[in-house]
Amino acid sequence: MQLLLKEKIVEIENGNILSPQGFTTAGVHAGLRHAKKDLGIIISEIPASAAAVYTTNQFQAAPLIVTKESIEREGLLQAVVVNSACANACTGVRGHKDALIMRSLTSEKFNLKENYVAVASTGVIGKYLDMEKVSNGIQSLSPGKSNSDAVDFQTAILTTDIVMKSCGYSSIIDGKTITIGGAAKGSGMIHPNMATMLGFLTCDAAISPENLSAALKRVTNHTFNQITVDGDTSTNDMVLCLANGLAGNHPLTPEHPEWETFVELLKKACENLAKQIARDGEGATKLVEVEVLGAKDDEEARFIAKQIVGSSLVKTAIFGADANWGRIIGAIGQTKAAINPYTVDMAIGPIKMLENSVPCAFSEDEARNYLNQPFIKILVDLHVGKGAGKAWGCDLSYDYVKINASYRT
Amino acid sequence: MQLLLKEKIVEIENGNILSPQGFTTAGVHAGLRHAKKDLGIIISEIPASAAAVYTTNQFQAAPLIVTKESIEREGLLQAVVVNSACANACTGVRGHKDALIMRSLTSEKFNLKENYVAVASTGVIGKYLDMEKVSNGIQSLSPGKSNSDAVDFQTAILTTDIVMKSCGYSSIIDGKTITIGGAAKGSGMIHPNMATMLGFLTCDAAISPENLSAALKRVTNHTFNQITVDGDTSTNDMVLCLANGLAGNHPLTPEHPEWETFVELLKKACENLAKQIARDGEGATKLVEVEVLGAKDDEEARFIAKQIVGSSLVKTAIFGADANWGRIIGAIGQTKAAINPYTVDMAIGPIKMLENSVPCAFSEDEARNYLNQPFIKILVDLHVGKGAGKAWGCDLSYDYVKINASYRT
Repeated sequence: MQLLLKEKIVEIENGNILSPQGFTTAGVHAGLRHAKKDLGIIISEIPASAAAVYTTNQFQAAPLIVTKESIEREGLLQAVVVNSACANACTGVRGHKDALIMRSLTSEKFNLKENYVAVASTGVIGKYLDMEKVSNGIQSLSPGKSNSDAVDFQTAILTTDIVMKSCGYSSIIDGKTITIGGAAKGSGMIHPNMATMLGFLTCDAAISPENLSAALKRVTNHTFNQITVDGDTSTNDMVLCLANGLAGNHPLTPEHPEWETFVELLKKACENLAKQIARDGEGATKLVEVEVLGAKDDEEARFIAKQIVGSSLVKTAIFGADANWGRIIGAIGQTKAAINPYTVDMAIGPIKMLENSVPCAFSEDEARNYLNQPFIKILVDLHVGKGAGKAWGCDLSYDYVKINASYRT
Repeated sequence: MQLLLKEKIVEIENGNILSPQGFTTAGVHAGLRHAKKDLGIIISEIPASAAAVYTTNQFQAAPLIVTKESIEREGLLQAVVVNSACANACTGVRGHKDALIMRSLTSEKFNLKENYVAVASTGVIGKYLDMEKVSNGIQSLSPGKSNSDAVDFQTAILTTDIVMKSCGYSSIIDGKTITIGGAAKGSGMIHPNMATMLGFLTCDAAISPENLSAALKRVTNHTFNQITVDGDTSTNDMVLCLANGLAGNHPLTPEHPEWETFVELLKKACENLAKQIARDGEGATKLVEVEVLGAKDDEEARFIAKQIVGSSLVKTAIFGADANWGRIIGAIGQTKAAINPYTVDMAIGPIKMLENSVPCAFSEDEARNYLNQPFIKILVDLHVGKGAGKAWGCDLSYDYVKINASYRT
């Protein structure tokens, strides 16, 4: 069933937020950073159904509160304005006002209802936005449909990221081509539940805000919430999805015969962006995928997978291409998940490390060669149930320390 | 009251496990490591009340299971045999047998009841002990009372530690001098609940095993369980306390008028060792103490303190002497503890960073100078209740990565 769904979904080469119908975008240098573009916008030609998931951090930044309020009014959005360099978090009453001004400036400039505008910020916590620069930046935004416009936006939202992150997928649903595009940023402070990460998804499907929210939440738990770079969650991050209906399908609902195809389409896009973020973790040299099988249930499988991929000791061992599987065992054992200490199988790539919790003989050279690849797969089968889940992360290198020892100054 | 108690307690210069009456110790090179001493023993002249706390990791190593069984029989111990280099964890039936053999060899060599012997191991997971070397090592142990014997033991238990860890304290209780001594190892894989850490406490107080256990558990939650190096817990670690009664006091019970003095004495020793372990975290250049005030309760205060001191982003910022307090806010906010986003005060050393959640102006130079000291104090007041707690950790440096990228090979 899963396989059939996946076959119906086509990845778009160089897909991005402009792949679906009816979106424009732009990115400019407003001066919040020295040289890099730092302010961007996505606009839908018509009001689009909107859904968002937000950081679980208790100190939610001002832009999140403003965006929530925008979406709550009608469930629709037509624009998202984003800045990097300054998170506008822990900035109190003044920060909240600044986010409101950012929203109203955008609404005026593009002649949109205020509550059709979402606001996002990422960067240093505890600094005020330079509103003069933000204001001038918004004035200079000139959204377009060319590939370079998409690149401008993708660049403007980055902080310590090394590469831009975008994707596009399409599928035939209801006899119509439905397309989804995405852009994301995030590289450090990435852990559970929307951590220092921004994800933007554009889509031309017809779907109500409620159903879009339900689909996004479901998919996020299996994708964005399953990546970790350093275990820290941020005050600012969110994933926002706009669906403007221009594909002309009958509105998608859970009762629609092709609902699962749509969910899978959304999942593909989210998983793609999530993996790009993990791969671009601060200082990362490798993308690590952990798959856990045989857990009590899917939730425990996901939790264990994330514990393994988030362990500093596992991450440093992978950086050093050292098949130190004892650290994987340590990471599993420190969860409260149901395990049987005598039935664990484990493999690093194609190399079996443990069978029924007993160490297997393996070639250190072969293991080292495998661990020197850029994509590392760890498979664990607990043999206690039928739960399965995946998580993604990266290794922990000298450069992680270098980047984070002096991020602010 | 706390202050008065503390004043009654005297720190012993160069105190160690031989400071209390009636203990001998030794450490030898059994050959499990290339050159460093790797096998040690502590012996009490007479059977001593025993108490232990163990790792919460679900994969408990064989020596822990054997030690538990020893203590459960009579609550008494007379010897602890310890090896480094190999953790004897994830070694199945054979590993369990090896731990039993280690125990019986020690019992025979020193003519002690088997269940008076505890076993501890630390090192690489998933390798079998070389029992010929262990056996020869045990035969060569010749416990004594000199300072060099204590140093031999302290060295034998180390793995990636850079420095030996020991302490000694005494107090007059019941008109008798009661002394406690300690030795510990632990440097990486240190997080909550007894993680890759061994702690050994010797004491000459008269106290039942039950009361000693109660005191040790209470104290551990405020000391050893409040240190973190990398968030990983190990399969092997434990804190073991022997009290042989040679001080001649009336047995200590919670009803004893000086019970709290004894608990404070034990706490002093545990906190001292815990801080030494944190300071010697793999690659650490600084000891970090986080104190949280004004939490809902003490437990939440300790939890938040530990979250802050365990955050990779906070740790790297401290390594880089960067007063990036936003990361501390991020770490607080990602807990589920009761907070009020508008009432947080924070200081890094003497420098106020936040008052009522509003950023304070501060001198970057002054902050950098402070953060370049070897001891860093972070103080947070949440102003939501009366809970208070501390946690200790270290910064995250290039050397942490270096050490862990190639620990096994």
